[in-house]
Amino acid sequence: MPHLIVEYSGNLPHYPEAEALTALNAALCAHPQVLDELDLKTRFVVADSFEIGTAPAQRAFVHAQLRVLSGRTPEAKKELSDLIAGVLRQLTPRPQGVLVQLSVEIVDMDRGSYAKEKL
Amino acid sequence: MPHLIVEYSGNLPHYPEAEALTALNAALCAHPQVLDELDLKTRFVVADSFEIGTAPAQRAFVHAQLRVLSGRTPEAKKELSDLIAGVLRQLTPRPQGVLVQLSVEIVDMDRGSYAKEKL
Amino acid sequence: MPHLIVEYSGNLPHYPEAEALTALNAALCAHPQVLDELDLKTRFVVADSFEIGTAPAQRAFVHAQLRVLSGRTPEAKKELSDLIAGVLRQLTPRPQGVLVQLSVEIVDMDRGSYAKEKL
Repeated sequence: MPHLIVEYSGNLPHYPEAEALTALNAALCAHPQVLDELDLKTRFVVADSFEIGTAPAQRAFVHAQLRVLSGRTPEAKKELSDLIAGVLRQLTPRPQGVLVQLSVEIVDMDRGSYAKEKL
Repeated sequence: MPHLIVEYSGNLPHYPEAEALTALNAALCAHPQVLDELDLKTRFVVADSFEIGTAPAQRAFVHAQLRVLSGRTPEAKKELSDLIAGVLRQLTPRPQGVLVQLSVEIVDMDRGSYAKEKL
Repeated sequence: MPHLIVEYSGNLPHYPEAEALTALNAALCAHPQVLDELDLKTRFVVADSFEIGTAPAQRAFVHAQLRVLSGRTPEAKKELSDLIAGVLRQLTPRPQGVLVQLSVEIVDMDRGSYAKEKL
């Protein structure tokens, strides 16, 4: 069930998306909170129209959002968040002169109304 | 007020988006929880950079997120979720040899800070 | 930490995204709830495949989602929502014959599992 959406600003060219997809899924599927590897759906999105803050500086961001069914403990959620940050820290490009910010967010999905099936 | 965002993986070509938009809006606007048809804003998004799990299998997904103002009963949310799943089950392509997963999520939006107007 | 995502339907051509990015960030960073201007990451997304309601009318939407760490008061969240609505009201195009709907949503992000760092 987990959905992972990673978004990064368009001024991070040559982002190794394929490598990051593989690394993120490997790291998360090895965690006991992900019961079936089949459940994890990860995607990358590029934000081409963006602005960070108000200063005339070169800035970039990468932001990951992991959506899991509600009921995880705070500790489990923090572990998942740290896992994702670890992979993205390693693989995110750092162009010279650009301040790159990384953030990871865990979102609880409402379990009672969640629908899921294989077609 | 409801916002419906349907996302599908790029390996589901010829997704009948126009037909699905019409069918989803017709189904949801006929439900008593949608008070004014004008309120329902549905969009489709294609995820071209994605990976599902870790196995070397052909897999695809379609995921719908319905965002409604908080206050719905669990029963009403489950009904809305099932309605959406029903339409997508019918219209999502199933390429041969590809395992397609369908999921639907209902999200409560904070009512107190929601702003809405016609321009 | 705030993430602002503004989405608008593709039938609002010539949306002044650059101007709106600057105006939104200026307005929000002047609010006491945004402690460091560097934290605010704003992006625009165009929804090209969409449908609003069921009537055969020309309709458009712009929807903003501000994601903030949990803990804000309802009053603070309403202020932020109104600030965003004010900027978008001023800058959103209004093509003749098209009904344009504007909405703003504030989302609480789980503080305990949020990860954030500069690379």
